[in-house]
Amino acid sequence: MQKNVVIIGGEGKLARLFNRELSKLGMSVFSLDKNDWHKADELFAQADAVIVAVPIHLTLDVIARCHQLPVECILADLTSIKSSPLRAMLDIHSGPVLGLHPMFGPDVSDFSHQTIAVCDGREPDKTLWFKQLLKNTGAELYTISASEHDESMTFIQALRHFSTFAYGVHLQQEQADLSSLIKLSSPIYRLELAMVGRLFAQDPELYADIIFSSKSNISMIKRYHQRLGELISLLENKDKAGFINQFSDVGDWFGDDAQRFLKESSAMLDSTQKS
Amino acid sequence: MQKNVVIIGGEGKLARLFNRELSKLGMSVFSLDKNDWHKADELFAQADAVIVAVPIHLTLDVIARCHQLPVECILADLTSIKSSPLRAMLDIHSGPVLGLHPMFGPDVSDFSHQTIAVCDGREPDKTLWFKQLLKNTGAELYTISASEHDESMTFIQALRHFSTFAYGVHLQQEQADLSSLIKLSSPIYRLELAMVGRLFAQDPELYADIIFSSKSNISMIKRYHQRLGELISLLENKDKAGFINQFSDVGDWFGDDAQRFLKESSAMLDSTQKS
Repeated sequence: MQKNVVIIGGEGKLARLFNRELSKLGMSVFSLDKNDWHKADELFAQADAVIVAVPIHLTLDVIARCHQLPVECILADLTSIKSSPLRAMLDIHSGPVLGLHPMFGPDVSDFSHQTIAVCDGREPDKTLWFKQLLKNTGAELYTISASEHDESMTFIQALRHFSTFAYGVHLQQEQADLSSLIKLSSPIYRLELAMVGRLFAQDPELYADIIFSSKSNISMIKRYHQRLGELISLLENKDKAGFINQFSDVGDWFGDDAQRFLKESSAMLDSTQKS
Repeated sequence: MQKNVVIIGGEGKLARLFNRELSKLGMSVFSLDKNDWHKADELFAQADAVIVAVPIHLTLDVIARCHQLPVECILADLTSIKSSPLRAMLDIHSGPVLGLHPMFGPDVSDFSHQTIAVCDGREPDKTLWFKQLLKNTGAELYTISASEHDESMTFIQALRHFSTFAYGVHLQQEQADLSSLIKLSSPIYRLELAMVGRLFAQDPELYADIIFSSKSNISMIKRYHQRLGELISLLENKDKAGFINQFSDVGDWFGDDAQRFLKESSAMLDSTQKS
């Protein structure tokens, strides 16, 4: 079942990864990058699937250019938010539509044991061949609604990155002595610090895109800020018992996962120290 | 050079670890736990070193009971803050005084390659034998002033733990769907989540003690809260360029450490996934 797949933004890292994985399985994969739009009509006419794989802030504009796809052609995207790209794809294309979010970075060696979140848009039956293709690469598909996906991403990406960003800004503005912090960090604290520092070795634009991508991100971050302020009043009131109560409540809420996370992260530290 | 070492709070986990390590090197180690104070005078009279190894909120009270040590005896503590215990030890004892902070938890198998922060209090020459003993266990000693140590700890422990605590409270109060968060987390996000969750598998009292231990912790946390609020205004003003500028500034401040942290944490993730 050799098929033609067009990847828009095909020269990006993630796009090239998809190109490689799908080519391995015998697909004809065509790259359509920003200087190739003169070839678009020709490529689209033969396409069985068109995948939008451009930076998040360009996604909606690029989707708008995907009219005139064959009616059986799948239109899909790889953006890390799903509701608005899915809506845009459904508006522009009358055939099968699929939202995808690979839960991994472009540096993985292949797709095996990697998760791809899948949001069905339209005509899921006609996307089955493509989903099977992704499974054949070794990827695990996790089907979820776009709204549930985006709500989770607000926590996982926007809030987490923003609070890490703020923590880094704080360290800098307090003129923390980084070398002393490193020397005084036990392995677990060193890992905490590494998780902050690693953010700043990466592309600011990418993180700006993620954090600025939706209003609900900003509302969520504001609610976090407000809660932090409320919790600080525990400190100001020397309310240790209140702190302990809240702590235990959250522990109950995490349930068995807290212990599992403790074991998992401790095992990770152990294995690193032994290597 | 067999010596008598008394460990107050000797039945605690960390105390027992010190007992084991020092006994291995031929020291006579005596445990003085809360029900043993009737033996204190006798043990103190023979002691070459007395180590206070009790929970942080009991440290100052216990130090106050360490009068009448032999004048050559070292008085040391293992508390995770150093200025106030050091001051109290210098007040109560006229001989050699040493502040120690083991940069590891009680679950390490031994002291090799573990760091112990050392703050000299009085008569450092007379503490050399004890420092050598610690080195003989395989530990690495990192000498630092009490005030510098405590300032670093405010970042490393109090602020970090408090913001993680607040993050957990936030997840709970937003009724985040934890199972969906886990499924949608790529390895690096899963680790971030594990770092939050693991906190709540641990003793609330211990973290309350650390966070409530000093006024400067609370001031620092309040400054962090304020900065977070200022940074949120970047989001409200849709000031992506401002965000990117701040991000780059912090990246410059982290310097080569940012890249190093990125590599280190990525290698850690890789090794875990392969195992």
